This record gives sequence, structure tokens and C-alpha cells, in this order.
Amino acid sequence: MEIIKGGVCSAKGFSANGIHCGIRHNRTKRDLAIIYSQVPATAAAVYTTNLVKGAPLIVTKKHIENGVAQAIICNSGNANTCNANGIEIAEKMSDLLSKELSVKPEDVVVASTGVIGQPLNIEPIANGIKPLVQGLSADNGHYAAEAIMTTDVAVKEVAVEFSLGGKTCRIGGIAKGSGMIHPNMATMLVFITTDAKISSQMLSKALKSDIQNTFNMISVDGDTSTNDMVVVLANGMAGNNEIVKEDEDFATFMKALNTVNVTLCRMIAGDGEGATKLLECSVSGAKTLDIAKTVAKSVICSSLTKAAMFGADANWGRVLCAIGYSGAQVDINKIDVSFKSKKGTVLVCKNGAGVDFSEDIAKEILLEKEIIIEVNLNDGDYNSQAWGCDLTYDYVKINGDYRT
Amino acid sequence: MEIIKGGVCSAKGFSANGIHCGIRHNRTKRDLAIIYSQVPATAAAVYTTNLVKGAPLIVTKKHIENGVAQAIICNSGNANTCNANGIEIAEKMSDLLSKELSVKPEDVVVASTGVIGQPLNIEPIANGIKPLVQGLSADNGHYAAEAIMTTDVAVKEVAVEFSLGGKTCRIGGIAKGSGMIHPNMATMLVFITTDAKISSQMLSKALKSDIQNTFNMISVDGDTSTNDMVVVLANGMAGNNEIVKEDEDFATFMKALNTVNVTLCRMIAGDGEGATKLLECSVSGAKTLDIAKTVAKSVICSSLTKAAMFGADANWGRVLCAIGYSGAQVDINKIDVSFKSKKGTVLVCKNGAGVDFSEDIAKEILLEKEIIIEVNLNDGDYNSQAWGCDLTYDYVKINGDYRT
Repeated sequence: MEIIKGGVCSAKGFSANGIHCGIRHNRTKRDLAIIYSQVPATAAAVYTTNLVKGAPLIVTKKHIENGVAQAIICNSGNANTCNANGIEIAEKMSDLLSKELSVKPEDVVVASTGVIGQPLNIEPIANGIKPLVQGLSADNGHYAAEAIMTTDVAVKEVAVEFSLGGKTCRIGGIAKGSGMIHPNMATMLVFITTDAKISSQMLSKALKSDIQNTFNMISVDGDTSTNDMVVVLANGMAGNNEIVKEDEDFATFMKALNTVNVTLCRMIAGDGEGATKLLECSVSGAKTLDIAKTVAKSVICSSLTKAAMFGADANWGRVLCAIGYSGAQVDINKIDVSFKSKKGTVLVCKNGAGVDFSEDIAKEILLEKEIIIEVNLNDGDYNSQAWGCDLTYDYVKINGDYRT
Repeated sequence: MEIIKGGVCSAKGFSANGIHCGIRHNRTKRDLAIIYSQVPATAAAVYTTNLVKGAPLIVTKKHIENGVAQAIICNSGNANTCNANGIEIAEKMSDLLSKELSVKPEDVVVASTGVIGQPLNIEPIANGIKPLVQGLSADNGHYAAEAIMTTDVAVKEVAVEFSLGGKTCRIGGIAKGSGMIHPNMATMLVFITTDAKISSQMLSKALKSDIQNTFNMISVDGDTSTNDMVVVLANGMAGNNEIVKEDEDFATFMKALNTVNVTLCRMIAGDGEGATKLLECSVSGAKTLDIAKTVAKSVICSSLTKAAMFGADANWGRVLCAIGYSGAQVDINKIDVSFKSKKGTVLVCKNGAGVDFSEDIAKEILLEKEIIIEVNLNDGDYNSQAWGCDLTYDYVKINGDYRT
């Protein structure tokens, strides 16, 4: 398997587009995206666990129930959440696209992202549908990736190529992250396409299993969004034998999916609102997988640790503090902590107590853009990784006046 | 009952002091505090639930087991946590004070606050003990309140006067808050003194019950400190009949204690690191008390809501989002949300959906220093309040480079 240049159009039979239709005032910002498969695709999705759910999720959930979808429409600039007419508008979006593409309305996935609680005007979307569909092309995946962005600074797309029974398959994906990122059983907006042939049941199994170690292991700000979803479309056009059980092909597919998802996770965490650094907490030596994950996530979520990383301050006491309140049963006196980046590794805590280290070297390591906080619990064989970002002035700035 | 000017020396028989002994480099910052009762006092305490516990907590817990204490020593500038010799140093602090005061070492409460994981040098404390004790006075409670501060901007002290069976009683307290504030079954450093006579069992009951609605309902940054404790000393010098059961006197005592604790909570939340505003989330109409508390706390902890309040932005969707991921079972379609300050009240959400409101009036209300986020779940009769603060540039600044 290798990572290739590309995104949602890398797999055979998929095209995409993104335009500015007028939901946002800024005319240079694309705000409406489409992803389309030439043939109906097997579909699987996971959604936010927030009790407040965006209207598009409710509509999508209904449409995807039969395990089939052919197109995705997604706007940015407005979440279509907590609006009295939300469902009606989301269904309208689906209807408009289904007519223009001549696909069934129930084969359309609808998604929205942006501010909550402001009615979404259907007019710009209705006016935009024609040019949106007319511009569909296997070269325009990047436009779709741009159109789903909100406060994201960087476009997030990735693709991989792998082989199943001699047939070349691809998986590609795009994501929108930035703020309100603290997935719980599901996540921010992620759209993944593949030409691998896989049954609906196995696709769903692959997705639900993988997100436990990927999208559920990132956090930007501890807020679980109302509109999170991850959708995978598999159109089978690679011509491989359909994956219908947990065999070697399924394992290969899982590995490829995991690579796409981990890459998108790192992109989302590293481009968290206001972030200057990608943080990874890598936990080893845990007694159970659950302990490893709980510890990794707690460290990544600690405001104090995040602020210390922003300041390149090797304040490891905050890491230990976050482990201590995580709720995981660990033996504090066995814990080792190191900070690592491409500049090197510095051990700062051994057996739960501080060790002498060079502040200068620690600073040099922590001034890098990607920091790994290594925690060894020395208590078992389970590992886990979680991803997050530093807490910066700009996070506050972006969120102090988001709506204006 | 009335609130009076004062603090830990308001109750009869208590004296206090605070000096600069040299733990901190800044010679104008007091860093060593003492609180002393003329006679041994009934003592009760609650501690952090963080698995990482400061050495002073371990020593204090042992000393307070018999329900009696006579003096409190507390340093700031170093938490004496995650150090190999931590217990030894905490016991040394206790021994030094016990000798100087001629009280039993096991009647001394030891507390520390500051950076984690740096060995605490006993020397400045040893040198400071004599002047610390010599300066003990009923007029120096303010110095003790100053000496326990870390990144706190404001001194936190309060006292109340009430009557039990014709005898005038007082309760007073001081607190240290600011960062790493997200109490869980116990809280930051709070020292409370009273001259009311109350049995050890009833004092412990009063404290444990009251913190559920006070110190466990505040959050500055979601980080539960390793060194949190609340200690109450009751020396009985007011001469009231000892409180030994849940009678009218106990209710009066509880009400006075609650007033002291709520006042300290508001002071701690309003003086959160970098805070410009005190936030209160007031939940009504909940089906159970647990739901009311869970919702109030979730809103107060939401980084996005906190940042919106900093920007005086009436972004109520974030409040609804925080309610939705709180874990509490609520009916989103029944929820009303208003923002309130001394400038007035603005209803922003009715039955879970937005209502028209004047952004100008909302802005005027949210520019105030104390904001109440009113949430009516319209689903029952239970209420709860939680307190927090806004998320600001200065929080990031303070915590980006705390150790240097």
C-alpha cells in the first residue's frame, strides 16, 4: 500500500466539485460541495452522539439506512441545526441534487457545517445546484475539499493505493475539522470514497472499528459538535472480488482505510482552531486498551498541557496531572514521560517523579511543529495514540467572535 | 445571618499570618501562610480525586483522621507533588510548625500549591517559621490570604455572622484558585474557620454535603488539580450548644457555610486565570438534580461558550451544543436559553430553536462583568448553578510559560 496524491476522486468512478453559491458573504470562499459516484455505492456512516443533532444528519441517516448512496451534498457557513425548518431544508437540498443528477433522493447524503441556530436559506443552494453539477469532474476533488472548510486553514485530503487479488484499489478522503472537535462515537465531517468492492455489512464494520482508534482519538477543544459525520462510499469499480468476510482482503482494506483516517486525523488536529502545533500522545505499557486510550485522550484534552506546548514549556507535571484525573486506574509511581520531536527525545519524568534534564534541549524539541508526548505506564502491553493541538491566542480570537 | 468584613480570623480564637520566606524569587510576594486556633479545633476536610496527589495531602489526611487540628501551614510557589522526597518535606513542614507553636505534629494541616514536579527546598520554610509564628495576629488574616495565591489576581476572603441559641457565631474563609480548577469531589485550596461548636461527624457531614453544590460546581479550565483541598476548623469558642444532629442549629450552620462557600466559589471562578468575566449557568426545570447539575457544569466547561462570552457574542448554539453532549437525558425541543446581566435579560432560544432578538441589546448585556446563562429545561422542578469564567488570550499567555 502506498500513499498517493489525491482525495475523493482518486478512486475510479468518482467525481466532485465545489463552488461559491452565496451562503457565505466572502465571494472567494467556496461554500457548496458535491461528491458523486457513477454507479450507486455501498455506503456506511457514523454520526455524532450529541443529543442536539443537525437536521442534515437526521435526513442522511434515513437515506443511508439501506446501505446505498450515490452522491453527497455539503454546504459550509451554516450548520442547519436548531432551526424550526431544518429537516425541510435538508430534504430540499437532497431533492434539488437528486433531480439535477437524476438519482434517487434517498441515495443522497446531506451534510452542513457552520454556525448553529441560524435558518439556512435554500435560495443560494437552489441557484447553485446547476453550476455545481455541471462542474463535476475527477479533477475537482480539491474544490470539494475547499468548500467544506469553515475556520480550517489547510485543505485536508489524502489517498492511498493498494491491491486486492491483483486488482488495484484506491481509498481517498477529505475532511473538515478545526473547532468543536471532540468526537464521541463519530466525528467531524469526513467523506471517504473507494472503488473497492465490499459488502455493506463489512464496510460498516470496517468504519465503526477504525474510528475507535482514529477519529474518536482526536480533540481540539473538548466540544463534541452537533453535525459530525463520517461517510464512506464504496462503488466497487476496482473489480476486486467483493469483500464479504474478515479475510486477508478485509485486513488489507482495513489497513488502507486506517492509513487514510490517521492521516486525516493528524491533519484535523494539526489544523485545530488557532493551532501552531500537532500534538500526539503516545501511550504504551497499559494494562488494558481502554486504559491506554483514556490516558492518551486525557493528556490531549488538558488545557494546561496544550497551553504549555504552545509555550514550548516542558511542564510535564501537567501531563501527570491529566493522567491522574483521567479516571484510568494506573500506578502513578511507574509512569515515565518523554517529549519527542524530530529534534530528539527528552526524558522528563521517571517512575512518576521528575528527572534532571536540559531545559535548553527540551525547548529546542518543543519548538517543533509536531510534538509526541510519550507516556509509558510500565504496567502491561497495550498501546494507544491520540491527537490534538496546542491552545493558542488565536483559538480564543477565532472563537471570541465567530458569528460576526 | 449577615456577611461581614473579614476572613479566617473573624471567628473567635483564630489568628493568622503570611510572609515571604523565599520559595518564590519575587520578594514582594508572600509565599508562606499560617492559620492558628488558640484551642484544638474539630476538623474536617475533602481532597482532590486526582490519582496524583500532592505529598501534603497524604500527610494532612493522616493528621486529620482523628477529627482534630489546631494549625494550618501552607506555602505557594511549589506544589510539592511528584517529588521523590515529597512526604518527608511535608512532614518536616508540619514538625517545624508544631515545635514553634508547641502543638502536636498531628494537629497540623499541611498544604502546598504551585508548580508540580520540582523538589521543594525546606530551607526557606525552616528559616521563615519563627517570623511566621511571631507575626500571628487576628489582624493578619489578609496576609495569609495573600500568601496562598499563585496566579490569582484578587485576594479571596469572606466571613459571615449568625446566631445559634443566642450565641453569636462566625464562619470565615480564604481561598486560592485561578488555574487547574475543575474540582471533582473536592477542590482547590480553601481554608475555613468557625467558632461554632459542632461535632466532628456533623462538621464533616456539613462540608461534604455543601461542596456538592459549591466547589464541585465550578470550573476554570477542566483540569482537576493534584493538590486540591478544603479544610474547616471549628474551635467551639462561640459558646453555643454543640451541634450533634440535623436540627435547626445545623440548618443555620449549613446556610452560613453555604454562603461562605458560594461567595468563595464566585471569587475563584471570576478570578480564573486570564478571566475577564464571571459566568454562572443557572439551570431550572430539570427532571432530576443530577440532570440539572450535569447540564450546568457542561455549559460552564465548554471552551467554545467560554470564548464566545469573552467576545460578548450571543452564540447560544454553543450553549445548546454543550447541553447536548453533557450526557444528561434532556428533551432538546423543550429548552429555553437566556443571557442575563445587570443590564437586563435577552431570550435567545425557545423550545430548542432560535428566536429573533436584538444583537445590540445582547451585546450590551454580555459586555458586563457577570453573566448568567439561564437554561430552562421545562421538564421538572430541579435547579442547579455552576460557576466559571471566560476563555481569554491571557489564559493562554499565563499558561504558555508558567514555569519561567
